[in-house]
Amino acid sequence: MTESTPIITLTTDFGHKGSFIGVMKGVILGKLPNARIVDLTHEIHAHWPAEGGFWLSRSRQYFPPGTIHVAVVDPGVGTARDILAVEFDKQIFLAPDNGILPHIIGEQPATPVYKLDEACRKQLGIKTISATFHGRDVFAPLAAAIGNGDIKIEDIGPQAPEIVPSLVEDPVMEGRRIRGTVVAVDSFGNLISNIDAEQLKDLPGLEVQCGGRSLKLQRTYGLSQPGELLALVNSFNVVEIARAESSAADYLGLGLGAPITIICS
Amino acid sequence: MTESTPIITLTTDFGHKGSFIGVMKGVILGKLPNARIVDLTHEIHAHWPAEGGFWLSRSRQYFPPGTIHVAVVDPGVGTARDILAVEFDKQIFLAPDNGILPHIIGEQPATPVYKLDEACRKQLGIKTISATFHGRDVFAPLAAAIGNGDIKIEDIGPQAPEIVPSLVEDPVMEGRRIRGTVVAVDSFGNLISNIDAEQLKDLPGLEVQCGGRSLKLQRTYGLSQPGELLALVNSFNVVEIARAESSAADYLGLGLGAPITIICS
Amino acid sequence: MTESTPIITLTTDFGHKGSFIGVMKGVILGKLPNARIVDLTHEIHAHWPAEGGFWLSRSRQYFPPGTIHVAVVDPGVGTARDILAVEFDKQIFLAPDNGILPHIIGEQPATPVYKLDEACRKQLGIKTISATFHGRDVFAPLAAAIGNGDIKIEDIGPQAPEIVPSLVEDPVMEGRRIRGTVVAVDSFGNLISNIDAEQLKDLPGLEVQCGGRSLKLQRTYGLSQPGELLALVNSFNVVEIARAESSAADYLGLGLGAPITIICS
Repeated sequence: MTESTPIITLTTDFGHKGSFIGVMKGVILGKLPNARIVDLTHEIHAHWPAEGGFWLSRSRQYFPPGTIHVAVVDPGVGTARDILAVEFDKQIFLAPDNGILPHIIGEQPATPVYKLDEACRKQLGIKTISATFHGRDVFAPLAAAIGNGDIKIEDIGPQAPEIVPSLVEDPVMEGRRIRGTVVAVDSFGNLISNIDAEQLKDLPGLEVQCGGRSLKLQRTYGLSQPGELLALVNSFNVVEIARAESSAADYLGLGLGAPITIICS
Repeated sequence: MTESTPIITLTTDFGHKGSFIGVMKGVILGKLPNARIVDLTHEIHAHWPAEGGFWLSRSRQYFPPGTIHVAVVDPGVGTARDILAVEFDKQIFLAPDNGILPHIIGEQPATPVYKLDEACRKQLGIKTISATFHGRDVFAPLAAAIGNGDIKIEDIGPQAPEIVPSLVEDPVMEGRRIRGTVVAVDSFGNLISNIDAEQLKDLPGLEVQCGGRSLKLQRTYGLSQPGELLALVNSFNVVEIARAESSAADYLGLGLGAPITIICS
Repeated sequence: MTESTPIITLTTDFGHKGSFIGVMKGVILGKLPNARIVDLTHEIHAHWPAEGGFWLSRSRQYFPPGTIHVAVVDPGVGTARDILAVEFDKQIFLAPDNGILPHIIGEQPATPVYKLDEACRKQLGIKTISATFHGRDVFAPLAAAIGNGDIKIEDIGPQAPEIVPSLVEDPVMEGRRIRGTVVAVDSFGNLISNIDAEQLKDLPGLEVQCGGRSLKLQRTYGLSQPGELLALVNSFNVVEIARAESSAADYLGLGLGAPITIICS
C-alpha cells in the first residue's frame, strides 16, 4: 500500500445483518486492491438520508484530502433518482440525489455536481444492475474507478442543474428562539440536533427546550449526576440533549425529527 | 501490501459484543501481516449454519479469485464435527462440517473436500485448542497459512467422502407450486427466501404466498407506498418479501424457516 | 504496507450508531496512512470500564508484539481524569485512568505508567479538544504518533504514582468458596465471569452457583441439550454460565455485576 491509495468511507443504513457491506468491499477491493476502506457508520436510521448527510458533513474534516466518501441511504433505489458526485474541499462525495449532499455543499451549491449517465455506466463495465442494491452495483465500482484514477468525476455525466434538498430544514432564528431538529441519535441515546454552536455565539442566557423540558447548556457529561438530563454542545459542535450515563432518547421518548428550541434571554 | 495478498472474509454468528472477531483478526494478522480482512457478516442468526451458507453462496461472486472465505457458525464446536476446506470457482472456503458448504458446492460435490487432520494441526503449530472457539484457534491460523502459501488445502487432511447436508432443503416444485423457505432476514426486516429467480423464469402469472398473504412480484421497493407489502426478486437474485420503508418480519411476525410458496397460473 | 506498520486495536463503548469509530480511524489514517486498525469491540456496556479491561486483558495475547491497544470507555471524559500509557509484554496500552489498565498490569504495577501532559498535547499538535470525544481528539493522534515512532510513551508525561483501581474486585477465595463477578455478556447471552480456570486447578468437586442455580462444570456447549443451562471454562479461560443454543442472560435475568460462586467439596 502506498500512501497515495485513497481512503474510501462507507455510510449506509444497511445495518450489520447480511453481507451487504461485505460485498461492497469485495467489489471495491476487486478493482482497487489496496483501497483503505473505513466504515463511517452503517446504522443510519433506515431511509433517513438526512441522518447520513449529518454524520458525513460533521465527519469529513477528520479524513485526509483525497478521501472518497460513499453514502448509500437510498429509499428510492431502482426508481429514476440520479446518482451524484461532487468534489468539495479536496474530497469526493458520492450519493443518491435524495437530500444527502446538501448537508455537505449547501442547497444552492457553487461547486459543480455531476450526475452519472449511461455512458459512464458502460465505461465502468456495469452490465446488469439490480433494482435494489446500487451500493454494490454502481457506487462500489464507481468509487473504485475514481480511486484508481480511471475516471474523473467531471467525466461521469452532465452537471446537475439543481439537487434535491434535505428533508430536514436548517435551523431558523425567530426572534429570541432558534428552532432546530433532532437529526441523529447515538448508541448512548443522546439526541443530536442540527443547531450549530456557531449560531449560539454571543447569545446571552441560553436555555434549551426539548420534550417539555427546559435545560441549561453544560460543558460535558461527567459533571452531571447519573440520570440527570443535560444539554451541551457536543464533540461535533452541535447542541445535544443527553442523560448522564443513560439514554435521553428512551427517557424522553424522543427520536429523529423531534424539535429542539433554544431560547436566549 | 501487494495485490497478491489474499482477501480473507469472515462470516460468523458472533455478533459484535466481546472481542471474538477482533482476536480472530489478531491471529490472522500475526501470521499474515498484510492480509486484507473483510467482514462478510457477523450477525448470522445464532446457530443457523444455513443462513451463513446462504449469504456466502450469494456473495462469493463479488470477491476476486484467490479470496479465502472463512465461515464459523458452529453450534457443534468442541464435539467431533470436522473442519472442511474446499476450492471452488478459484476461491477457498473453510467451514465446519454442519451444512454450510452444501450451499456453495451442492450436496454431492464433484469437487474434492478435505477435512483437517491431526498432522495438519501440528504443522500449523496449534498446540492448545479451546473447546469453544475454533474460529480463533483453528480457522484463523489455517486461513493465514493457506493465505501465505504455507499450506495447500489438499494437504490439510484426507478427502471427506460425504459432507453434512444443509438443514434447509432446496426449494421443490410440486405441480404449479414452488415451496421455499425464508433463509435470512436483513436489517430492514426483509424476509429473504432460497427461491432463485432462475426457477421462476418463463413461468406465467406468478403469485407469492407467505404468512397468509398473496402478493404479486414487483421490481423494486421504491415503487410501493410506505407500509405496503411486496414480493420481489432481490439483488441476490432470490424472492424476498418486503414492506416498503418498514419491516415485513415484524409486521408478519415471520422469520427464519418460514415457508414461502410461489404459485404460477 | 510493510510488516512493521503497527496494528492499532480499538475498544470502546460507542456502539455502531454515528460516525464515532469512523472518525477515530480517519484521524489515525491521516497521520499513519498504513496503520492496520482492528476493532476489538465497540459494544462494551456503556460506561463499564471493567468490561473493556476484561476483553483487553484476555485478548492481548492474540496480537503480535508492537500492537497498540486503545481503550476508550470513558464516562469521565472532559473531567480531570488522566490519560495513561503503558508498555506491557511488548505491546502498548492507552486508556483513561478509570480502572481499565489494572486488568492488564495489576493494581500495583511494577511497570511504569505514564500520564499525558500538556507539553505532549502541544507536541501532538492538538489545539482544540472537545470536552466529550477524547477518542478522536487525543487517543487517535496519540496512537498514530506512537505508531509511527514520533513519540515514545515515556515522553508523553510524568509517571503516574498510582492508578485508579478497577470497579470490579478480583475473585476472592473464602474457605471452600470462590466468589467472582459477571464481567461480560456476549452476543449469545453467555454470562462471563472473572474467575480464571487457574484458580480452580486441582480443586475437587466443583459446583458453580449463579442466579439460584447449581451447575456442574462442562467441557463445551455442544454436549448439552438445547435449552440446558451449563457452566464451563470458556475459550478465554474463565468460568462462564451458558444456555445451550440460547441466552443464559435472558433466561436467568442476570447481567454485568451478577455474582458467581464456585464451591468445592
